[in-house]
Amino acid sequence: MRSNLVFLLLISSLFTFSQDVRKISEKYIAENGVEIINNFKQLLSIPNVAYDLKNINKNAEYIKSELEKRGVESNLLRMVGTPPIVYGYLPVKNAKRTLAFYVHYDGQPVDKTKWSNDPWEPAYYDKAIFEGGEAIEFPTTQAEIDPNHRIYARSAGDDKAPVTSILTALDLIRENNLEITSNLIFFFEGQEEAGSRQLRQYLEDNKDLIDQIDLWMFCDGPVHQSRKPQLVFGVRGVTGMEVTVYGPNRPLHSGHYGNWAPVPGQMLSDLISSMKDKNGNVIIDGFYDDVEPLSESEKQALLNVPEIDSQLKSELGVNTTEGTGSYYERLLLPTLTIRGLNSGNTGKLARNVIPAIATASIGIRLVKGCDPEKQKDLVEAHIKKQGYHIVREEPDQETRLKHPKIARITRGSGYPAARTSMDTPVVQSVINRTKEVIGNDLVLLPTLGGSLPLYLFTDVLQKPAIIVPIANHDNNQHAADENLRVENLWYGIRLMSALMTIQK
Amino acid sequence: MRSNLVFLLLISSLFTFSQDVRKISEKYIAENGVEIINNFKQLLSIPNVAYDLKNINKNAEYIKSELEKRGVESNLLRMVGTPPIVYGYLPVKNAKRTLAFYVHYDGQPVDKTKWSNDPWEPAYYDKAIFEGGEAIEFPTTQAEIDPNHRIYARSAGDDKAPVTSILTALDLIRENNLEITSNLIFFFEGQEEAGSRQLRQYLEDNKDLIDQIDLWMFCDGPVHQSRKPQLVFGVRGVTGMEVTVYGPNRPLHSGHYGNWAPVPGQMLSDLISSMKDKNGNVIIDGFYDDVEPLSESEKQALLNVPEIDSQLKSELGVNTTEGTGSYYERLLLPTLTIRGLNSGNTGKLARNVIPAIATASIGIRLVKGCDPEKQKDLVEAHIKKQGYHIVREEPDQETRLKHPKIARITRGSGYPAARTSMDTPVVQSVINRTKEVIGNDLVLLPTLGGSLPLYLFTDVLQKPAIIVPIANHDNNQHAADENLRVENLWYGIRLMSALMTIQK
Repeated sequence: MRSNLVFLLLISSLFTFSQDVRKISEKYIAENGVEIINNFKQLLSIPNVAYDLKNINKNAEYIKSELEKRGVESNLLRMVGTPPIVYGYLPVKNAKRTLAFYVHYDGQPVDKTKWSNDPWEPAYYDKAIFEGGEAIEFPTTQAEIDPNHRIYARSAGDDKAPVTSILTALDLIRENNLEITSNLIFFFEGQEEAGSRQLRQYLEDNKDLIDQIDLWMFCDGPVHQSRKPQLVFGVRGVTGMEVTVYGPNRPLHSGHYGNWAPVPGQMLSDLISSMKDKNGNVIIDGFYDDVEPLSESEKQALLNVPEIDSQLKSELGVNTTEGTGSYYERLLLPTLTIRGLNSGNTGKLARNVIPAIATASIGIRLVKGCDPEKQKDLVEAHIKKQGYHIVREEPDQETRLKHPKIARITRGSGYPAARTSMDTPVVQSVINRTKEVIGNDLVLLPTLGGSLPLYLFTDVLQKPAIIVPIANHDNNQHAADENLRVENLWYGIRLMSALMTIQK
Repeated sequence: MRSNLVFLLLISSLFTFSQDVRKISEKYIAENGVEIINNFKQLLSIPNVAYDLKNINKNAEYIKSELEKRGVESNLLRMVGTPPIVYGYLPVKNAKRTLAFYVHYDGQPVDKTKWSNDPWEPAYYDKAIFEGGEAIEFPTTQAEIDPNHRIYARSAGDDKAPVTSILTALDLIRENNLEITSNLIFFFEGQEEAGSRQLRQYLEDNKDLIDQIDLWMFCDGPVHQSRKPQLVFGVRGVTGMEVTVYGPNRPLHSGHYGNWAPVPGQMLSDLISSMKDKNGNVIIDGFYDDVEPLSESEKQALLNVPEIDSQLKSELGVNTTEGTGSYYERLLLPTLTIRGLNSGNTGKLARNVIPAIATASIGIRLVKGCDPEKQKDLVEAHIKKQGYHIVREEPDQETRLKHPKIARITRGSGYPAARTSMDTPVVQSVINRTKEVIGNDLVLLPTLGGSLPLYLFTDVLQKPAIIVPIANHDNNQHAADENLRVENLWYGIRLMSALMTIQK
């Protein structure tokens, strides 16, 4: 009985505290919205393409000074000719954990002709442009702000919103004397949209600065399509290969040689067709063998993810999907996708020939457990099993005459998937805290379909890493008219405040 | 006994007569070679691209006047804006048959930069350029002529050699008082290389001039690769279609949608693969049903065609051919050839997408018995049987959402095959006469693999039609450095002399 009482008291105190953070942040936003939006606008006004080193440095300097204003010890980690990392550290006495917030402050290059406004002159709209929104003045009073308003600028959604969210969270925590309960590390990258080429090197060079981190939180990407908040625990890996099969050594007249000369387009179709069954399952031996099974928590989480299949089918104009299983289930398997096919010509350029070659570009996505090299080995082994002699260069006449079927394989590079267990204690703390402050209707997604080099953190650094997105899904990420819904900025501030104040 | 004696006497007299023609033509060539080559050179000097109407008319006028010089009643059949037909008629008293010699006097357009000499300034070589031949002066004495010499010029092989062969045959027949035994019609076309667009109209407009013809002989194409003389009795027909299968309504991110969105490249591969078995046989229902079986004569003839498979394999760099059966056997079946495949991109342009569509261009060759429209119907029926909904235009959203698999089919035009029976009496006469004068080692080919609109003669005019080629197989037809081996000109003269003097 006694322990139950303690438990109840504890729950009640946590509940009150969480409610406080929610209320406090809501109140803060309600009183300071104009200024927050103005700060965000200022950040968005600095051009931020990774290759524009002069401006990218301005972004870094600006963020560094904003962190310092809020008492965060900050540095720019530099490597010649690359955008710096803005590194901030906020130690807390007796903290039992260190949380890292990863954000990237660079954005995708722009084609200004496709934008409704200059990408670095933020514009304010009463709603989304695609919904018929119109430009209005930036708000000057709290009453003018509607959470459905949108701010248009490059990186509004991807990925400057978390910067302003973090800075504002620090403000409201200080102003309300809330307690920061973990050591906080801020790690803001400036070349994510340029491929994070030097990220590994930065991590290795600054091992001492990041070694104590217990959880990396990637504040990037959008929340769920249903506009529900979501936490994401993994990404798929990616690799690929190109396969060329050979017919005659030159294109032949399809009359003089039709039925006699091998037809590479037919050979390639047979080969590709042999890789999948009619239900969309890859039937290459061992292709699914290394897939790490879902944990009970992951299975449970999946059951609670809102169904999006019908919406997607209608949006993408498809009656049927590949394979059996929902969208989210299908993301948990490695893929084999024909990204490209080429042989001879089609359409007006089609001629009466038997082409000399046919080529397929095969994309492979990986899930936790699969190794990029092994997965390509399996595809190669399958091609061999179909009777092909594998070559790496154009086959010479001797090779041609020796083998009935020849495939030239070019292997692409790639990297593995990453998936952090929802059961890891530090991850559990984040999930629970988010539910407390944001609400129980939280989408927990075991993996995204796309790929990010999260493995650098989970596999190389051997640290848990999760994705904590803020932006609306319809933020036009990477495209023209990128934007952030004001409500998602408010959400980001609440979420960051919650994560900085997880109970000790 | 008596009848046997008569038979023997008859045989003996024919034999002597045939030997006479062979000897007489050989003697004539031996004495007049310089002049024959000079005549040929003169003909080759007139540019002859079908669209160059001024020059094409010069060719026609020249040939008409040469026919008239030899007592052939000649006319130019004209249709405004097209190259004329040179029509010549040589009636013979009490002739029991009328033979037509078809030749085309136009040639393929040229890319002069690829030629060793001007295509219309004939050059004389001691052997083929590809064998290391060198240009020498045109011969001025008989002793200088070697049958391995070559004459280089556009249309030397395709198709002016028969013109000079026919004119020379008329000369030697007159000079030696040989008897022309059939009514002869000369039908020289000027737009074969431009697609014979008005040929059908010419035939219809001049029905009375050609109605009496018992056999059309197409003096075109090359003799056998083994340099043996050959007669050809048919060509394959040709048609085709384009098939596009649909995935999502726009290219999708292969990470976000891989394993879920249908992959058109995979769908198309499955579809193409379902059309043929592993032995290269088309397994579309009914695809071979209408194939007219070979006659006993055709089967027998096939057995005597020199094998060329090993030579072709080595030349074309293939270890194995499609299907089981020799080159010539495979020409006797309709084909289904993937002329082109296209989906997304390959190589450096490959991107991590699921393309929206995949397209195949399918070529179909037909043999005697197959109808071009029905053959395409069969392919369509097969595609339906694979679960596809067939459309003729881009599918709209409603159609997309209604059908699991959609294929857009564009049907090409085409025409049927033609094959004249070797057993037709007038054809038998030609075969026998050729054997008598040229020798028994004659290749009789039931069909070529390629296509020509011979059906206009066999099916529309309902007349037997055969191909009587003269040129060497390595004459570079259609390409740069087209040429004729002098021996093949001599062969053409002997053959034409033989055909004009078939016993009554």
